[in-house]
Amino acid sequence: QDWRSRKKVQIFQYVILKWAFALLIGLLTGLFGIFNNIAVENLSGFKLLMTTNLMTQHKYFKAFAVFAGCNVVFAAAAATLCAFISPAAAGSGIPKVKAYLNGVDAYSILAPGTLFVKIFGSVLGVSAGFVVGKEGPMVHTGACIVDRRDLITCGAAAGVAAAFRAPVGGVLFALEEAASWWRSTLLWRTFFTTAVVAIVLRAFIQICSTGRCGLFGEGGLIMYDVSAAAVMYSGADILAVILLGTIRGIFGSLYNYLVDKVLRVYSILNRKGAAFKVLLVIIISLLTSCCAYGLSWFATCIPCPTHESISCPNTDESGNNKSFQCPPGYYNDLASLFLNTNDDAIRNLMSTSTVKEFHIHTLIIFFAAVFCLGIITYGIAFPTGLFIPVILAGACYGRLVGRLFETISKLDAGLFALLGAASFLGGTMRMTVSLCDILLELTNDLLLLPLVMLVLLISKSVADIFNKGVYDQIVKLNGFPYLEAHAEPYMRQLVALDVVSGPLITFSGIEKVGNILHALRTTGHNGFPVIDDPPLSDAPELCGIVLRSHLLVLLKGKAFSKDRIFAGEEIFHRFAVFDFAKAGSGKGIKVEDLDIEEEEMDMYIDLHPITNTSPYMVVETMSLAKVALLFRQLGLRHMCVIPKSQGRPPVVGILTRHDFMPVHILGLYPHMKPHK
Amino acid sequence: QDWRSRKKVQIFQYVILKWAFALLIGLLTGLFGIFNNIAVENLSGFKLLMTTNLMTQHKYFKAFAVFAGCNVVFAAAAATLCAFISPAAAGSGIPKVKAYLNGVDAYSILAPGTLFVKIFGSVLGVSAGFVVGKEGPMVHTGACIVDRRDLITCGAAAGVAAAFRAPVGGVLFALEEAASWWRSTLLWRTFFTTAVVAIVLRAFIQICSTGRCGLFGEGGLIMYDVSAAAVMYSGADILAVILLGTIRGIFGSLYNYLVDKVLRVYSILNRKGAAFKVLLVIIISLLTSCCAYGLSWFATCIPCPTHESISCPNTDESGNNKSFQCPPGYYNDLASLFLNTNDDAIRNLMSTSTVKEFHIHTLIIFFAAVFCLGIITYGIAFPTGLFIPVILAGACYGRLVGRLFETISKLDAGLFALLGAASFLGGTMRMTVSLCDILLELTNDLLLLPLVMLVLLISKSVADIFNKGVYDQIVKLNGFPYLEAHAEPYMRQLVALDVVSGPLITFSGIEKVGNILHALRTTGHNGFPVIDDPPLSDAPELCGIVLRSHLLVLLKGKAFSKDRIFAGEEIFHRFAVFDFAKAGSGKGIKVEDLDIEEEEMDMYIDLHPITNTSPYMVVETMSLAKVALLFRQLGLRHMCVIPKSQGRPPVVGILTRHDFMPVHILGLYPHMKPHK
Repeated sequence: QDWRSRKKVQIFQYVILKWAFALLIGLLTGLFGIFNNIAVENLSGFKLLMTTNLMTQHKYFKAFAVFAGCNVVFAAAAATLCAFISPAAAGSGIPKVKAYLNGVDAYSILAPGTLFVKIFGSVLGVSAGFVVGKEGPMVHTGACIVDRRDLITCGAAAGVAAAFRAPVGGVLFALEEAASWWRSTLLWRTFFTTAVVAIVLRAFIQICSTGRCGLFGEGGLIMYDVSAAAVMYSGADILAVILLGTIRGIFGSLYNYLVDKVLRVYSILNRKGAAFKVLLVIIISLLTSCCAYGLSWFATCIPCPTHESISCPNTDESGNNKSFQCPPGYYNDLASLFLNTNDDAIRNLMSTSTVKEFHIHTLIIFFAAVFCLGIITYGIAFPTGLFIPVILAGACYGRLVGRLFETISKLDAGLFALLGAASFLGGTMRMTVSLCDILLELTNDLLLLPLVMLVLLISKSVADIFNKGVYDQIVKLNGFPYLEAHAEPYMRQLVALDVVSGPLITFSGIEKVGNILHALRTTGHNGFPVIDDPPLSDAPELCGIVLRSHLLVLLKGKAFSKDRIFAGEEIFHRFAVFDFAKAGSGKGIKVEDLDIEEEEMDMYIDLHPITNTSPYMVVETMSLAKVALLFRQLGLRHMCVIPKSQGRPPVVGILTRHDFMPVHILGLYPHMKPHK
Repeated sequence: QDWRSRKKVQIFQYVILKWAFALLIGLLTGLFGIFNNIAVENLSGFKLLMTTNLMTQHKYFKAFAVFAGCNVVFAAAAATLCAFISPAAAGSGIPKVKAYLNGVDAYSILAPGTLFVKIFGSVLGVSAGFVVGKEGPMVHTGACIVDRRDLITCGAAAGVAAAFRAPVGGVLFALEEAASWWRSTLLWRTFFTTAVVAIVLRAFIQICSTGRCGLFGEGGLIMYDVSAAAVMYSGADILAVILLGTIRGIFGSLYNYLVDKVLRVYSILNRKGAAFKVLLVIIISLLTSCCAYGLSWFATCIPCPTHESISCPNTDESGNNKSFQCPPGYYNDLASLFLNTNDDAIRNLMSTSTVKEFHIHTLIIFFAAVFCLGIITYGIAFPTGLFIPVILAGACYGRLVGRLFETISKLDAGLFALLGAASFLGGTMRMTVSLCDILLELTNDLLLLPLVMLVLLISKSVADIFNKGVYDQIVKLNGFPYLEAHAEPYMRQLVALDVVSGPLITFSGIEKVGNILHALRTTGHNGFPVIDDPPLSDAPELCGIVLRSHLLVLLKGKAFSKDRIFAGEEIFHRFAVFDFAKAGSGKGIKVEDLDIEEEEMDMYIDLHPITNTSPYMVVETMSLAKVALLFRQLGLRHMCVIPKSQGRPPVVGILTRHDFMPVHILGLYPHMKPHK
């Protein structure tokens, strides 16, 4: 690829540019994060204030109409944006970024339209009261800002950093979950980006703390403060935590299983057209509103605690102890969770020193509702995140376990909620280090770490028995040819030649234009081996590989000759320096753009100048497991397979990413036992 | 390597074992860290108490004799341990671990004797008052505990985590500085290890805080608390910080340059024998004692601040405001730095709200002394760390700059000391992310991050102009064949065949015992290509590679036959399952151990069962830059070079790590311009 060496100044410019982009990503992601939070807090704050006001006037049906109406309007707007402008913006975005960083090219996922829809769709979706989060979209937003593989890594890290205000956590997330390759220099640049994000956020929070951001109060950015609770634990506590982790692992894998099933149904429904997508969103929105408003009536009113200084009942747009239908002096604990933004609900669940605040049956109802709503909400047509639903369900579950164990465990219910959230994240996403670090950065308490690690270890191990992480599932569901880090066991029994598929198309070193054009039109191959036949060489030998994109540039340039002669150096003068550089998303030349005349079809073109003469190649008898490792480690797109014995054509096949997919291999060898 | 598939139970055992080892490393490293700190605090506390008591009785010469005597005794003990038991334990250890993780085999560096010397030598060396640290040895200690590549990564991370009590910092250090390869699973295991270390340390500190650890008070484990200082900065402060970073980058590279020179001198001196090594250590020890004691006399006595609650003058074993020769009510600021453990001196320098505590000329004297002593101390024969000298000099320099800028900058002098330490670390070690994270974990202040990053970015960039990081220098100086992450530019002009060196020794598929024995005895090669000649195949073709260690096992088993026949399956019954597994350090069979009789020399042995039939290979015309990338990315030890055209032997050479060394390549092609 780097076949034309660059000057020193250009290299310097390139380095400066990369750092400037890293800074820009950091700044923009930070600003988007701020914008997102302020917008969500203001939109849903407005909605909740109206509802609460009508509630206090006992206009219950009107209150529900306003509540559900706002939700439907926001949801419909988000869905319309998404369905008509950029369908690719739907969903979490993390699986797409992950697949892209693995080497899967799916251009539209990172288009500017996607960015626009991500930002506004996410704000509207979260404001609509759906059980969705903004983290996934934020990662995608960070990734959308630029379109280069390593900068996308920075972007993904910046997204997580913005969502959790954890700069190191963002880096570790990119390292653990998103990136398939890693370089030491990338680490520094990624950290730079996440640090910029953290600083931007910090600055804005200080500005907002003076009350200049509308309804944006203490809420918004996730920050759970459990530091007030003393962390001292005994054997019984650890037993409770182990139980919590184990059950959670099962729940987590169940969640993944159901999300997978629901996604399959939705993908069928969503194919029926944009209007249908919007309709689906509106139905889910109404369902969510009914759940939130309707279920709150089932809670019994609880007398306000007298000794506390907080306002109770609360008629603000956020906060604990919602009044709802209760008489003065009482509060509705279920409404405190439902009629709030998700962030506030999580904060309420994790609040410490408030053991009795939520009834056990309240927690059970809320957990069931959030678990189900989270599953059916993911996959509808607007930007949805998975973090928040998972944290919400997990925190509720944790607090529930805390209540059940309160007789034997002295841990605070808020801590149990935190551990529950951690275990559910571990069981669903199967992240570990980044999760520990994010929780460490959020809570700043090292003593909590052993418990968090224990619960993560258990819930991840238990869940791993049943299925894969939710992002991996979605990647697989979307049909991305994702290369796993480890070769499948059955690959050891196969060799490279066994999986080579399709007819091999090779070009001669100096090839007829017509042949090339025909090959480009009839196949979708991106690389073609070039073979030097006699008289160019003594025997046929492999010269290298040409890329489709380079062929197109060369054909467009029309450097043809009547005879089979070498083109020589002057061919480079026909092209500008960056003609062969990688084109941006969808900006490359297409076959249809070529305008080759009939008489030119029989002319020759010298492919040597654009041939990569050092393609990676493997011998046909090499173990497929090793070939897969090589392919993945070096981040290749194609690889030549050469014969072992002499006297055969110099190349026997080309391996591409698709040839390593289990679907392909198991199709060829159905008797192989796939890894569970 | 994995040519014999294992059973499921064995895989499970293996996984359990790995985690158990990770836990063990964490526990042991944590315990060693604790032991180290308690021992150092007690030994040097005892020494300093005696000295201070004699000083208060005005017995100045006796005080010096005790001080210097203790130092010499400790130093001589450390040097004796190191010189006679394990010379490999000298120095920081980080360069060795780095080289080992890059794939350089140097068995003795990780032997149990090394571990023993590291632990006790480091304690004695630090207690002897040298300007050395315990971080490097601790990393090496962590690495010594086990002898597997990925567990050593865990160990190195554990070492840093133990030194700074920063679990995530340890992981990032391993990722950024130590490891050459990285896998996602490794991240989780490394974090697990560092978390265990952090928890162990935390538990012990709680125990020690009740005063059960002798003279181990609040000191010991590095923990700089600058959180008391308000971090608000203006343009002038940033200017000061930029200046600080720039000058520091120059100092840092100067430091590296001088360390390199001094090390070259020492390596000559050290070759003269163990006794000479000990003598050198004693001389340096006396010099250090003279500096510390003698220079303290140059400081003027400062009246104790009246408004503060701390004891002044201080006659404890640690702490600020040493009395030294001053009359009651006065203190000697230089003695507060010199007659203290390094950890305490750093804490004193970084103490906040004590702007005027140290005179400018005190800081200049101390900086000059520490800078010079640090340089001449590294490289003498006992375990020395580089972190602490660098932090000490850096903190002193930072505080000095803070004093000089105090009229225009409002930053606290303690903060300046911290920034100075960070910039010197950046200028010397060129670490970035791990350093930021460690400082973040130590200070817990996100607002400090922009300044730290700025100063690191500047000092690293400035220092990079002049030379490489100090660890890379030492790796190079030791002559380890370290593979760089990036190929050198001149490699693009060469192809694989250009650097193949030496006569190629190949074996036939069924080879005479005598030939094999001869090859093993006359060469040091670790891998030999196996070629199937007629009549085993139609034409000579490459069968694979056999490893020296496997050959030795096979020869020892004496599976010989009179004729050239295939050995068949029954050969495996002659060997136990793990006979071919990788032997531990130095436990493998040696050529001399073989006992082959004369008549056996003419017999044949079938190499096919032990041949790795899927060796990595490249075509001779492949760009060397690409080959180097492949070699490094896959962590190979040898690679076959195959011919491009047909009708030649099936393998034209073997590439090993040494063939990629600039020394080797530039020796062959002197006209190539090396990268600066």
